[in-house]
Amino acid sequence: MLRVRVQLLLGILFLASLSVSFGIVHREHQESQEESDSRGENNPFYFSSDRRFHTLFTNQYGHLRILHRFDQRSKQIQNLENYRVVEFKSKPNTLLLPHHADADFLLVVLNGRAILTLVNPDSRDSYILEQGHAQKIPAGTTFFLVNPDDNENLRIIKLAIPVNNPHRFQDFFLSSTEAQQSYLRGFSKNILEASFDSDFKEINRVLFGEERQQQQGEESREEGVIVELKREQIQELMKHAKSSSRKELSSQDEPFNLRNSKPIYSNKFGRWYEMTPEKNPQLKDLDVFISSVDMKEGALLLPHYNSKAIVIMVINEGEAKIELVGLSDQQQQKQQEESLEVQRYRAELSEDDVFVIPAAYPVAINATSNLNFFAFGINAENNQRNFLAGGKDNVMSEIPTEVLEVSFPASGKKVEKLIKKQSESHFVDAQPEQQQREEGHKGRKGSLSSILGSLY
Amino acid sequence: MLRVRVQLLLGILFLASLSVSFGIVHREHQESQEESDSRGENNPFYFSSDRRFHTLFTNQYGHLRILHRFDQRSKQIQNLENYRVVEFKSKPNTLLLPHHADADFLLVVLNGRAILTLVNPDSRDSYILEQGHAQKIPAGTTFFLVNPDDNENLRIIKLAIPVNNPHRFQDFFLSSTEAQQSYLRGFSKNILEASFDSDFKEINRVLFGEERQQQQGEESREEGVIVELKREQIQELMKHAKSSSRKELSSQDEPFNLRNSKPIYSNKFGRWYEMTPEKNPQLKDLDVFISSVDMKEGALLLPHYNSKAIVIMVINEGEAKIELVGLSDQQQQKQQEESLEVQRYRAELSEDDVFVIPAAYPVAINATSNLNFFAFGINAENNQRNFLAGGKDNVMSEIPTEVLEVSFPASGKKVEKLIKKQSESHFVDAQPEQQQREEGHKGRKGSLSSILGSLY
Amino acid sequence: MLRVRVQLLLGILFLASLSVSFGIVHREHQESQEESDSRGENNPFYFSSDRRFHTLFTNQYGHLRILHRFDQRSKQIQNLENYRVVEFKSKPNTLLLPHHADADFLLVVLNGRAILTLVNPDSRDSYILEQGHAQKIPAGTTFFLVNPDDNENLRIIKLAIPVNNPHRFQDFFLSSTEAQQSYLRGFSKNILEASFDSDFKEINRVLFGEERQQQQGEESREEGVIVELKREQIQELMKHAKSSSRKELSSQDEPFNLRNSKPIYSNKFGRWYEMTPEKNPQLKDLDVFISSVDMKEGALLLPHYNSKAIVIMVINEGEAKIELVGLSDQQQQKQQEESLEVQRYRAELSEDDVFVIPAAYPVAINATSNLNFFAFGINAENNQRNFLAGGKDNVMSEIPTEVLEVSFPASGKKVEKLIKKQSESHFVDAQPEQQQREEGHKGRKGSLSSILGSLY
Repeated sequence: MLRVRVQLLLGILFLASLSVSFGIVHREHQESQEESDSRGENNPFYFSSDRRFHTLFTNQYGHLRILHRFDQRSKQIQNLENYRVVEFKSKPNTLLLPHHADADFLLVVLNGRAILTLVNPDSRDSYILEQGHAQKIPAGTTFFLVNPDDNENLRIIKLAIPVNNPHRFQDFFLSSTEAQQSYLRGFSKNILEASFDSDFKEINRVLFGEERQQQQGEESREEGVIVELKREQIQELMKHAKSSSRKELSSQDEPFNLRNSKPIYSNKFGRWYEMTPEKNPQLKDLDVFISSVDMKEGALLLPHYNSKAIVIMVINEGEAKIELVGLSDQQQQKQQEESLEVQRYRAELSEDDVFVIPAAYPVAINATSNLNFFAFGINAENNQRNFLAGGKDNVMSEIPTEVLEVSFPASGKKVEKLIKKQSESHFVDAQPEQQQREEGHKGRKGSLSSILGSLY
Repeated sequence: MLRVRVQLLLGILFLASLSVSFGIVHREHQESQEESDSRGENNPFYFSSDRRFHTLFTNQYGHLRILHRFDQRSKQIQNLENYRVVEFKSKPNTLLLPHHADADFLLVVLNGRAILTLVNPDSRDSYILEQGHAQKIPAGTTFFLVNPDDNENLRIIKLAIPVNNPHRFQDFFLSSTEAQQSYLRGFSKNILEASFDSDFKEINRVLFGEERQQQQGEESREEGVIVELKREQIQELMKHAKSSSRKELSSQDEPFNLRNSKPIYSNKFGRWYEMTPEKNPQLKDLDVFISSVDMKEGALLLPHYNSKAIVIMVINEGEAKIELVGLSDQQQQKQQEESLEVQRYRAELSEDDVFVIPAAYPVAINATSNLNFFAFGINAENNQRNFLAGGKDNVMSEIPTEVLEVSFPASGKKVEKLIKKQSESHFVDAQPEQQQREEGHKGRKGSLSSILGSLY
Repeated sequence: MLRVRVQLLLGILFLASLSVSFGIVHREHQESQEESDSRGENNPFYFSSDRRFHTLFTNQYGHLRILHRFDQRSKQIQNLENYRVVEFKSKPNTLLLPHHADADFLLVVLNGRAILTLVNPDSRDSYILEQGHAQKIPAGTTFFLVNPDDNENLRIIKLAIPVNNPHRFQDFFLSSTEAQQSYLRGFSKNILEASFDSDFKEINRVLFGEERQQQQGEESREEGVIVELKREQIQELMKHAKSSSRKELSSQDEPFNLRNSKPIYSNKFGRWYEMTPEKNPQLKDLDVFISSVDMKEGALLLPHYNSKAIVIMVINEGEAKIELVGLSDQQQQKQQEESLEVQRYRAELSEDDVFVIPAAYPVAINATSNLNFFAFGINAENNQRNFLAGGKDNVMSEIPTEVLEVSFPASGKKVEKLIKKQSESHFVDAQPEQQQREEGHKGRKGSLSSILGSLY
């Protein structure tokens, strides 16, 4: 009970701090006040790499960690309660041991190469995956992952959708390691003997090595669930793996690479790759879209909102500032007499950070270095991206003059003129030439134009 | 914590009062006792127009209000937790300003006419809607609503299915008004300048008018989110709007009018119009049916239950008495020795009241004036309406004699005779001629037959 | 509040006892310690027939009872929160009176024969069901059930999926009995008179018999909801019932018999019958598979896991020991330094007991007498059963040698040899000849081989 009370109290303090930190910016001095929270640590949509992951396993060869629950950080994204995000990193020439989980996974390679092997009761499929490859691993499928590269680290992000419980799932490993017992060890001696038609001593020696461990005073597989592989072992595994790196759309159950298709938005400031449920049966099954976005330093992704998808973005490389616009709660907090104020949620994002963009919430992203981010879109089917500025896909430019006239203080013509001024679409320069004025932007070293050629 | 305690206490009192108020009526004097609660205020299925709506916005031109959460009033309808109901009313020659929400809407015109415009990133569609027209507005779609009529008020009811959270959603308005800030105002000066390729002062002047406001000491758009439109503005908007009023089934994404189809039940006492998921793709998508029902004063909608749909009914015009039959909780409250008693939930309904009919709960409705009600049916696909009396669709008349024999105290033949006596179907006279006796029905002025000709 | 506190306290004690009882068995003496909980009473996946059912109705002719909520016993199976299990038993020549419920049912005959009659508003369908027959009863369908046999009891198990609330539903009976009032009795006198076009006294006499009851000082239908039927009544009902006992796949909406198809696994130790969503539209609609499994005394169902289905098994005849392997909670309880231990959940099952097997959790079943069990698989579509030992469907035998090599302490060749030793598949002898040693198995009377011929 005490814990409940304390949580309530913390909850109240947290809400209080929110309403201070994210209030509307009417005056300039208020904006500087906000700087104290400019990293966005209290922002419920921001999951910093440092503070919001829970490590499941780590050793000298890599780690496996899980992002905190979305629904516990904000009620505003409660519909993400069935989704978890897992990050896996491993060193060159390593293996993540065979295991299965009580969750569907959508696995995406952010960096490096992998051999992914899916083991079925009567067959197995091995694939070579490269950056941008995605693959659904159905719940309960035993699989293992090799980083076959001699130099490059492997970095994978997985969206997990648990099947026994909305937010919890577990990894069942076949091997006993210092990190985890083999799940086979959970069966009694009698059952194991009858199952393997062998004496328990033999089973123990071959599968668990617990006697040896006691003799030697140490665990048999001291490495844990990520282990080193020899070159020849990797070469043998490589032989049986299919490469699908060059195909945009592979056969229904095979990996696909979202960066092999044509970008849906592209100009000198950025490129947006996307694969949707409409185009891929694995994504249709999960109702998820995936995106990979490159932006040049100094570029701005124009303000826009997703019509129905909730987006989980992961910074892969580089840094960015993000601004998300929400509302104070209309249905609960509004006093009849007061105006409903908008809330700005900002954060400064760097590698491995995660940010959630609720459906219908307007957002803008400013790349403060060359940037690549990846995104899962949940509830993706028929999602539409509505831009609020720019030449194309701009929802504001479809509003008729008569309505603009009564919606905004200036005349309809003046509003239209403002809306149409920006001729670029989707990605623009965050600091157009004519505005090199009193910018609060400190770290910038040169004009944007001198950098544009240098990316990718 | 205090609030929790108090709610618990109130909950207990409430349950106690329920079991008193809705117990079974064995004796006449108990029935009169019940009269004290005849308005049904404690009835968890009854949402009175006065007490169960929360106003989101109101001014001299109209209002927007949201019904309380269903699942917070009764666990018995917890599966409605993802659904909300919104009512919108506006005066002649007005506009509800452009906005979008993080919810799917099913919009229905109960009274008056509307121009509904859906704005997409690269197109817009305008429709003229009349009484009985329905249209799905997908989550995140920017739209605005005009009441183009010179005299009649517009009344709209929306079923909302939120996408970020099961029960909460928010309206994002483009314009800054005294009621709500423009969501564009949530972006910082730098982002707005780069997005619109313009100086912030210009943007502020054209879109937000905050300077002017400070100069004048008042808000620029003092009207709030519902504003007046000039005749010529309406005429211009009307020109580009498609009329779909005469078509029963329009193209897949366009509005449809449920009152243009043939009524599914019809006689001299009433008419029932219905559009189901099987007949309309927009409704299939939401798994909702919609009904519009006319009843004459003194008519009775025969006792029946919906096999699987939970029905949310809204009184559009007139008054009615409703009786709903539930059971005390078998699985939790039953003492082994006691008989399980039925509970009667009654209410006297008038304009704008909402009443929820759980699936499988028997219900009967008595029109105490000429009546029109509208209904959403949730979980609608393959729903069947099972009547318990009357000539057609009467589930009792399909039970074989041998089973009637052992199910009821009288002989099978006598039970069949009783079941078949009522020759009308669906709608009947609530006070047949031969029963003008000791009716407790006070306010009735004349015989029903003298009224029947006067309706519609 | 007090109750909450007490529950919390009990919860803590319960968790504490769990971690003691189900910890890993490293040493033999610990195994004997575990015997004190060998019945598995604290095992959250075990629902004993004695303690985990709530009786809804019982009289001399049979009973109707409901299993406790799954999600209240363990968070690990929270995704079963929308499912309930009901057991119905009745004596020869009886009728379960006509009623409907606010839940979809999947009804399966475990023992005996039944006439099931589904009553629709304009038709009725009667079917003769035998052991292994299954039928979906859509929510709100009025139905009644006859045990037409002169000698054998009828035993039925129903999976219930409520429609108004995730876990609660109610049975609405048409007749007034000592157990439950007729739901028609919930309507007021006026409504009943108008509905049946009859005087209330007549209605009461024919349908409710309350006057008679008061005169006689007893209930009119004292039997309750299960009543006796005369031979000639049964014969009359039988005449109109369709028999579908010989067809493997009947027409889409009709009953089907899962034991009429070929077993999916079969050898001298056991037989497994299964019907999946892929093969049957009623099951596809519910996303459920159903299985019926026969095992001989002394047989072992090899360790395996279901890839995505959560299985609810019901012991129909005989006894078994079950072992289920889970993990301590990785995401919440793990201390970075400690090894993650597996948990063994065991139970000794006998007739009418229920056991839940979460998806992806390995399980093994040892028949300690001739055994028949039935199972519902929830979330069934594309479920795969992954065996961990045996000749066929063995996921371990698909792991390449190089990976076995680094996964287990012995060499890859030795591991492969162990994996391939067991030549039988799915069902094996739980105590192979060469191991008749220091078995802790007390009650066994003879060698398995002497029993094998005697089953079914």
